[in-house]
Amino acid sequence: MTTTQPAPEDRDLPFNVFAKSCPSRVTLEHVTGRWGALTLGALYEGSLRFNELRRRVDGVSEKMLSQTLHALERDGLVHREAQLTNPPRVDYELTELGREVAEHLLALIRLLEDRMDTVIEARERYDAARGAR
Amino acid sequence: MTTTQPAPEDRDLPFNVFAKSCPSRVTLEHVTGRWGALTLGALYEGSLRFNELRRRVDGVSEKMLSQTLHALERDGLVHREAQLTNPPRVDYELTELGREVAEHLLALIRLLEDRMDTVIEARERYDAARGAR
Repeated sequence: MTTTQPAPEDRDLPFNVFAKSCPSRVTLEHVTGRWGALTLGALYEGSLRFNELRRRVDGVSEKMLSQTLHALERDGLVHREAQLTNPPRVDYELTELGREVAEHLLALIRLLEDRMDTVIEARERYDAARGAR
Repeated sequence: MTTTQPAPEDRDLPFNVFAKSCPSRVTLEHVTGRWGALTLGALYEGSLRFNELRRRVDGVSEKMLSQTLHALERDGLVHREAQLTNPPRVDYELTELGREVAEHLLALIRLLEDRMDTVIEARERYDAARGAR
């Protein structure tokens, strides 16, 4: 079932995101990519239709959201449910694994939102030390 | 201290990564970007020099690692320690906030590595259903 299995460096597992050829790295990129984290986080609240999701993930283009959803669906993190109504209705929801991934992402998102004052102070110090605008 | 403060949608916090103009979204992208997550994860094990880090984050170019480190340093997640030796020696290490962020990322990385069999099975089902290679 598994394909490339890089030698584990420091743990007794066959997959290792630090190895560039490991398939887990691609999934890490889908999950944490520019729109992946926000899409998974938004779907954690419940299933959404494409346009609802697009409004929730402020700033995403139709094309990028579509690509993001395909990658997450292919990795088994998002389930696409098409209903044969007229007009057709398509809902997106997290799979069980998708929910576990989203929980970790939301914990990270909450931490960053809570600590943005620290981040903004650090940026100001960094820019001041370099005489930047 | 804070700059743009988008209206919180569902939580009583001034920062919201789902709003495109919120400064927390930029930090989320630094942290979860293509190389940010791996760099923070690698530094969790201890301080590293640039070339050590480059070997650990397999596949990163010198330019991308340098850009990643600057962004993480500016956000106050990585500390750069330059020693005035000859040749000069520069170490990178996580700040306290960087460690907290890295803990969340490593939990996510471990989950993905542990569940890659599920992901690979999902990919095979997806491709088979679409008659892809």
